[in-house]
Parts: sequence; C-alpha cells; structure tokens
Amino acid sequence: MNIDMIDAAAQRLQGHVRRTPLLSSPFLDDIAGRRVLVKPECLQHTGSFKFRGGWSAVSALDPQVRARGVIAFSSGNHAQGVALAARSHGVPAVIIMPKDAPRAKIDGTRALGAEVVLYDRATEDRDAIGAQLSAKRQLTLIKPFDEPQVIAGQGTTGLEIAAQAAEVGVSTADVIVCCGGGGLTSGIALALEARAPGLRVRPAEPKGFDDVARSLAAGEILSNTAPPSGLCDAILTPHPGDLTFPIMARLCGPGLVVTEDEAQHAMALAFRHLRVVAEPGGAVALAAALFHGDEITGDAVIVTISGGNVDADIFATALQRFPV
Amino acid sequence: MNIDMIDAAAQRLQGHVRRTPLLSSPFLDDIAGRRVLVKPECLQHTGSFKFRGGWSAVSALDPQVRARGVIAFSSGNHAQGVALAARSHGVPAVIIMPKDAPRAKIDGTRALGAEVVLYDRATEDRDAIGAQLSAKRQLTLIKPFDEPQVIAGQGTTGLEIAAQAAEVGVSTADVIVCCGGGGLTSGIALALEARAPGLRVRPAEPKGFDDVARSLAAGEILSNTAPPSGLCDAILTPHPGDLTFPIMARLCGPGLVVTEDEAQHAMALAFRHLRVVAEPGGAVALAAALFHGDEITGDAVIVTISGGNVDADIFATALQRFPV
Repeated sequence: MNIDMIDAAAQRLQGHVRRTPLLSSPFLDDIAGRRVLVKPECLQHTGSFKFRGGWSAVSALDPQVRARGVIAFSSGNHAQGVALAARSHGVPAVIIMPKDAPRAKIDGTRALGAEVVLYDRATEDRDAIGAQLSAKRQLTLIKPFDEPQVIAGQGTTGLEIAAQAAEVGVSTADVIVCCGGGGLTSGIALALEARAPGLRVRPAEPKGFDDVARSLAAGEILSNTAPPSGLCDAILTPHPGDLTFPIMARLCGPGLVVTEDEAQHAMALAFRHLRVVAEPGGAVALAAALFHGDEITGDAVIVTISGGNVDADIFATALQRFPV
Repeated sequence: MNIDMIDAAAQRLQGHVRRTPLLSSPFLDDIAGRRVLVKPECLQHTGSFKFRGGWSAVSALDPQVRARGVIAFSSGNHAQGVALAARSHGVPAVIIMPKDAPRAKIDGTRALGAEVVLYDRATEDRDAIGAQLSAKRQLTLIKPFDEPQVIAGQGTTGLEIAAQAAEVGVSTADVIVCCGGGGLTSGIALALEARAPGLRVRPAEPKGFDDVARSLAAGEILSNTAPPSGLCDAILTPHPGDLTFPIMARLCGPGLVVTEDEAQHAMALAFRHLRVVAEPGGAVALAAALFHGDEITGDAVIVTISGGNVDADIFATALQRFPV
C-alpha cells in the first residue's frame, strides 16, 4: 500500500466520485472550542465514503474477471457502494447482509440492482455463505476494508482533505475519522502522510466497540468482546484488519471513544448547523471533536461524517432527544 | 442589473462563500422520470443562499457607511445571511423579524451577533419600525431581494450552476428555483442568460402564494391574497419586486406551484436520498421536479434547495408523514 495506489484510484474515480465540500459552522466552533472542519461523505454517491472503495476495487479488476460479477459482505454502506459501482460497470453484484441491518440500507442495496442474501448474525456464518456462493458463481469478493484497492479508494478522501485544508489555511490538525475495520482511516492516513504531513489521523469509535483504540494502545490486534449491536451499525467490525492495522499503528494518533448519546447529539447538531444527515456511526468523529476536546490539541480539528444512511425513526429520535 | 455585477459579486464573495456541490441520486431520477440535479444551498454558510446576497450587499457598501451598521427585515434566512456578513465585516446588524418566525432562525440570527427586533405580522408595520430605527442610527437597509447587489450575490449561484451543469454534460434543461420575492430566481436567470443560455429558469412556489407564477402569466405584478402563513415561511413574500419582476418576465419560463404536502414529501426524499436537510420553502423546487414532471420537458432538470433552517419537530413530522 502506498500513495501511488491512492493516486491511481483517484484517476479511476475521476468523473464518477463526488468531491464532497468541507463544511463548517461558527456554532460548532463555539461548542468545540476550536475550529471544526467537516468532510461530509454522507453526501457521497450512495450516502457514504464506501462508494469510493467499491468503485476503486471494481474498476481495478481485470475486465473478464469483473464480467462474472462481484460479491460483498456488508451491513449496508459497503453494500450500496459496491452495488452502484458494479451496476455502473454493467456487472452483477451479490451482497450478503445481516437480517438486522437498517431497512434503508437493505432497500437501497436492492434498488441499486444487487442480489441481496440475508443471514442471521447470531446463528449463521457469513464467510461460509460467501465462500459457497463465490465458488459456485465465480464471483470476485470485494472485502469491505482489508483489501488494497478498497483502502486506495477510501484514501482519495484524504487527498481531498489535504487540498481542502490547505485552501482554508489549516496545515496542522488532528483528523478524526469514523473507524470500523480501518479502511477509511488507513487510507486517509496514507494520503495525508504524503500530501499533508502536519495532519494526523485519529480513529473514533463507539464505546464498547473500541477495538482499534485498544489495538493501537496495545500495539497488537485486539478484538471487541461484545457481539455487534447498537446504533452505530456501520462501524461495528470485530477487530482491525491485517492490512489496515499496521498502517494505523504507524501513522495514527490515539483512538477516541464516544458514547451512543454523544453520537446522537452530534447527529442533531449536524442537522441544525450543517444541514446534513449523519447516521449514528457516521457521527462518532464529530462527537469526539465536540465532546472530547480535552483529548485533542491544536486550533483546528478536521472530522469525517462517514455516512448518512439512517432510518427516519432513528434520526427523529436523535433530534428529539437532543434539542439544539 | 447585468452579468458584470454578478461577476463582481463573485469576486467579492471569493474565499467567503461556499461552492455548494451538485447532488444527484438514481432514486430521484427514477421518481422524476428524468435526470435530477440538485444545487443544495442549504449547505451554504448560515444554511441558505441568502448569505450570498448579504455578503454581496455588505461588501459593496462604502466602508464609512458600512461602519455605522446595517438593518434588514427577514423571517430568518436573509436575517442570518446579513448577520454573518456584517459580523465578518466587523459592523453591527439590526434584524427585524416576525414573532412567529421559526425558532431556529431567530436563535441563529441572535447567535450570529445581530440585534433582533421582533414584530407582530398581523398588527405591526415592519416598514415603519425599520424606517424609524434606520433613521435614528443611520443604518443602511439591506433589502431582502429588490436590491441590485443582493440580486448580484444570489446570481453567483447561477454562475456555479452554469459551470457544474457543463461538467456533467447538461446544456439544455429547466432550472427550477424556490421563489419568494425573486432575488435568487432573477439572479440565477441573469447568470444563465450569459453563461448557459440553454438553461431556462422557472420559479417554484407554494400553493396559495403563487404571486410570481400569476404575475408571469398576467405580464404584470400581482399580489397574494392570503396573509403569509404556513410551512413555507422562507418564501412567503406578498408580490414580486419592482427590480426582480422585469428580469423574471424577460427570462423565466412559467411558474410551478406545489402543495405543502408535496414540499414535505420532497423534504423526506432529500433526507433519504441526498442526506441533506431542506426546509419546507427550500423543498418546493425539488417537489416540482419530482411531482410535476408533466409540466417540465427535457431529459434533465436542475433544482435549487434554497435553505435548510427548519425546526426539528417540523422536519420529523415530514419524515413521519412521508416514509420513503
């Protein structure tokens, strides 16, 4: 993994990916006690940064291999990213999703033309289901994060952050990234290492699912003890990846951990002051910037909103619980 | 009014205004039966396009005049745009707002450092209040739409639409614009006349407040008969302006009129498929594109979302009434 792969992914994504803006609000600056710059990947195609990695991976395949189709496991955002990338390339996509994924994500994936196979997180082995289907139909597996071309695609977010931070005069800051398996985090870290070395990436995770923060502190890959559940469905991976962890260990600062309440509060503040829709897992970095300022240094902080695919009732509950 | 004034406003706005992206979703394309391109000015500073006109007008003032301060009448979006522009220029702002304006807008205006004077729409004359204050403190009135530098500022939205439509290969389309007094509509129309003559502006209004549509049809300025009330507070002006109407009459196609239900439905669809927050008045153009397709021709349509300053309960109600 290196910056050349990210530059190459940016080339393949040119004209297909949306260059999301860098948002800000004086009200958020006041709450955080420093300047807050927000990269809203909820505005990306399919509503999350995952479209970048999906497109990068699908577009990098040998055309004959690609024509047979692709397969992915996902609770939703990677699913939609791969589904749209596959459809745009005119090839089939099979997506294996947990039965309890948000309806918005299951429906969205189906509507993008993918064949959705649902499984039970508690009783079924998604890897076995995937391996069987993949072998039978000669589909290429697009892993959600531990895959070089996926990391390269997510890293294009970092290229944009480097350019956009420079445009607004920010050259030194923590860049807080919503972190599941570490694809976005490690991709952005690689991009910033090359293009904006004064910007340091720090992963943000929900409490109880802070495998990356603990792994970084321990210097080795540790797993979450609890089974994945809760509001932050998008980023509940069991442990950092074999590819992503060494990159994060080399380049990232300490992880930040926020509560579900803080994530919901950040959703309400993003609604009011940025007018964007953040899903709970997509709001953990903003929550860290707003409510864990004592763990951050510097006059400015940059955060990702990684996705905005949230069911209406969950969104409305966040607005109601945290009137702002 | 001409394109040179809009170009000059764009120069003054450079580095201060946000270049909002052009969003799209295959799901909205399916509903509309054509390609839908959305210019989300809800992502602009202060949550609406009004910041453009506010900044344009404040920045165009003679510095000595500006230093005494500015005054504006507004139900909210113009208020916040002028307040932030004034604060950024280091000058005072007095804003006269109706008592029944959305709380989000009143609070937002105060928090941006403006002095807010509330009045009763039914019993008090805002013009008299404004004239008195203005004379006493030598404040410069920044009118919400019928003011050349305000129209020029709003017109910068049109410069961006012209460039962004060209980038995605659209050179012929209707451009539906949420319309109150016609500042945004006439500004965009002037910009497109010069830079993208294949793009034709059409105003969108809520039912019962279709003064612009009726005025365009009649060829003369007509007023709304009902007093301003309802969800679409941002665009409930009594009649088109003396400056804006001739521009619209010369350049715009027929007006489109949508119901409040259609506006709420469009808010819910923008939440789900674009992940942006639209206020009711800011959603009327999208509603027209989605639900009045038979009044539009062409393979593509461009719409503005003019603002996103909406109270949480009104937003939640729209999501609940229109599950998507």
